[in-house]
Amino acid sequence: MAARKKAPKKSPAAPAGKRRAPKAPAARAARSEKRVQATDAETLRHIESTASRVHETIRKERRPDLALPVRALRNVSYAEDVGYLEIGRQRKVRTLSVNTVKNFAQTLRMMSLSRELVRGDDFATKREAYYISKNWDECKFDEQMESDTVMDDIEALFSVNAINREQLRFYPEEHGGSVSGPLLVMDRDNTGRIARIDCTNFGSGAYSVPSSVEELAFETTAKFVLLIETGGMFQRLQSHRFWETANCILVDMGGVPTRAVRRFVRRLADEQRLPVFVFVDCDPYGIANIYRTLKVGSGSAAHVNKFFCVPSARFLGVTPQDIVDYELPTHPLKDVDVKRAKDALKNDPFFQSQPRWRKALEQLVHMGVRAEQQALAMWGLNYVIDEYLPRKLAEPEKFLP
Amino acid sequence: MAARKKAPKKSPAAPAGKRRAPKAPAARAARSEKRVQATDAETLRHIESTASRVHETIRKERRPDLALPVRALRNVSYAEDVGYLEIGRQRKVRTLSVNTVKNFAQTLRMMSLSRELVRGDDFATKREAYYISKNWDECKFDEQMESDTVMDDIEALFSVNAINREQLRFYPEEHGGSVSGPLLVMDRDNTGRIARIDCTNFGSGAYSVPSSVEELAFETTAKFVLLIETGGMFQRLQSHRFWETANCILVDMGGVPTRAVRRFVRRLADEQRLPVFVFVDCDPYGIANIYRTLKVGSGSAAHVNKFFCVPSARFLGVTPQDIVDYELPTHPLKDVDVKRAKDALKNDPFFQSQPRWRKALEQLVHMGVRAEQQALAMWGLNYVIDEYLPRKLAEPEKFLP
Repeated sequence: MAARKKAPKKSPAAPAGKRRAPKAPAARAARSEKRVQATDAETLRHIESTASRVHETIRKERRPDLALPVRALRNVSYAEDVGYLEIGRQRKVRTLSVNTVKNFAQTLRMMSLSRELVRGDDFATKREAYYISKNWDECKFDEQMESDTVMDDIEALFSVNAINREQLRFYPEEHGGSVSGPLLVMDRDNTGRIARIDCTNFGSGAYSVPSSVEELAFETTAKFVLLIETGGMFQRLQSHRFWETANCILVDMGGVPTRAVRRFVRRLADEQRLPVFVFVDCDPYGIANIYRTLKVGSGSAAHVNKFFCVPSARFLGVTPQDIVDYELPTHPLKDVDVKRAKDALKNDPFFQSQPRWRKALEQLVHMGVRAEQQALAMWGLNYVIDEYLPRKLAEPEKFLP
Repeated sequence: MAARKKAPKKSPAAPAGKRRAPKAPAARAARSEKRVQATDAETLRHIESTASRVHETIRKERRPDLALPVRALRNVSYAEDVGYLEIGRQRKVRTLSVNTVKNFAQTLRMMSLSRELVRGDDFATKREAYYISKNWDECKFDEQMESDTVMDDIEALFSVNAINREQLRFYPEEHGGSVSGPLLVMDRDNTGRIARIDCTNFGSGAYSVPSSVEELAFETTAKFVLLIETGGMFQRLQSHRFWETANCILVDMGGVPTRAVRRFVRRLADEQRLPVFVFVDCDPYGIANIYRTLKVGSGSAAHVNKFFCVPSARFLGVTPQDIVDYELPTHPLKDVDVKRAKDALKNDPFFQSQPRWRKALEQLVHMGVRAEQQALAMWGLNYVIDEYLPRKLAEPEKFLP
């Protein structure tokens, strides 16, 4: 129970063969990264050329249109070599007419707002964008749901040009995510000054990532990133400086990771070539919601997956087999858990493409139980630090895909 | 829309007459602060003397007992001069018997765990404490709810000695809370090294407070603390360095503040004598849940209120009158909102004791609408920075109590 004094039996500092992410995904990620790092100038150029095209069409007394990617499951696919749920090529063409005029005008005004924000080096949250529209006379939104939909449309429209919503300066309401470990974050504030944030220097606290991480730059000597589901487990690893023992960056996801956290980790994976390991509860929520969302994204927001997914992420644990191997205390699966697991097996293209995951999920359903990551505390509070994680990190090739 | 260039018309840097918190509550807070800063040695002494008393009673072949404060609404009161919902003097005496033996043993083992944790300079979350009990043979817990209840009992038992749960080394699962501004946080890690955390140096990010803030020390030149309900508004004030303009500490509560955030702010209020201003949505949830919990605590956990409440906190806005004065866009109150507001008026001793709050809540119900803090964006994204907050901060005596 005393504070850990001895080094873990096996040093997790250098997980053999895991110095870099697997080659193919890393190379692919690097390519996609180049694509997604649009500059403000490029963002402005794309907004302006879209608007100019509409304007010219109107001046020629023709009816302008906007071709928006179809954001529906029928236009989403999963291919292993891409590594995330990808939006397809289907477009819906919105043509200006009596029926569409309000929505058309709202879309253009929202684009205009984005342009103002980029030019003024500012941002708006979804909520703020909705309220700003209250000054748009004829085309104000009645409900935030409407403005959210238009924002999603614009996001999908410009995602084709490798510009994401944060680059359009529309920020999410919540950021979440605490970070600690050997990572220097460079962040420019609105006076132009660069803050150098040393994530080894927060005592028992941590670095809280901002709503948009596009502007951040990184330096790190870490060997990998460890994503953690619960605040309690993060606090344990942080308070015991596990990031030092294992030379890694710790990230507290606090459940399903926010856009900011996913993008932050994605950029670390791409730019710093860091392997990403995920440590969550062993239940269908941890596997089919948290891990799946992080790695391959969601079907309902497939147009953003190319920016936010971390296809190179691997599942460290807790695995169904860990429940057996570590004799963990369990809780019975609830009906909703069983439904979620069966759904993943039956309908989720990611799990369907991975025989090892199929087997693991079937094992979980068969056992009829789930285990929380803190269940390891049964063997001692710091068993997770002294035994479990070092053993796991010694054999990363055994992680679930 | 452009990034703010000019200083606000009225400087909020020195809200007249608000250099310090109102005298009476500050003095009271300081006294209570002295009480609550139990050292580890004191914590151990209280645990050991309680256990010794039980042990000696058994050796004398008598039946030992524990007198636990009654944690029920009938044992809770509110007095304005105390400033929070306070637990009363009623005790339930748990005597060792055939019926109580398991619970009695669990309570003693949980105290023993706390002692181990203090001595080993470690901690356990509620979840971890539950799993540790799996090794307690005859007295293991079947459900986490049972171990949570025993933990609450122990917390209440030692709160009489001015020792809180975090000092017993039982940490909450979530910490929440992002902080920025002219604040130096000193935090000792488990190697004994002191980290000095400069909260002006996080770029667009922030300092994320740990699960337990008992060990932290502070230095600040700030004039007040501004608590913010939503991540989006916090990001706006943080990105525009409002903490610099107004010389304040910004804290993102992310809804109802966690124990860690409440305690963090309470310590700033007490030790640094900083006024605390709260900026939330104008709806019964923002007022009767977020603000009320922060300021006077909750009746169901009244035994912890003396550590976690911030009785000197004042309500900056958004007030019902702001909806009128600033012509804010609104949403209709839902049934649940109206119920919550009427409940507060009818049953909540805090609101009942405050005529200005009664009037404000009645006004809200009468208007039948609510307004989000981002609704100010209707007048421009940074209207909140350039106009609203400076105007408000110029007249803190007008804040709701």
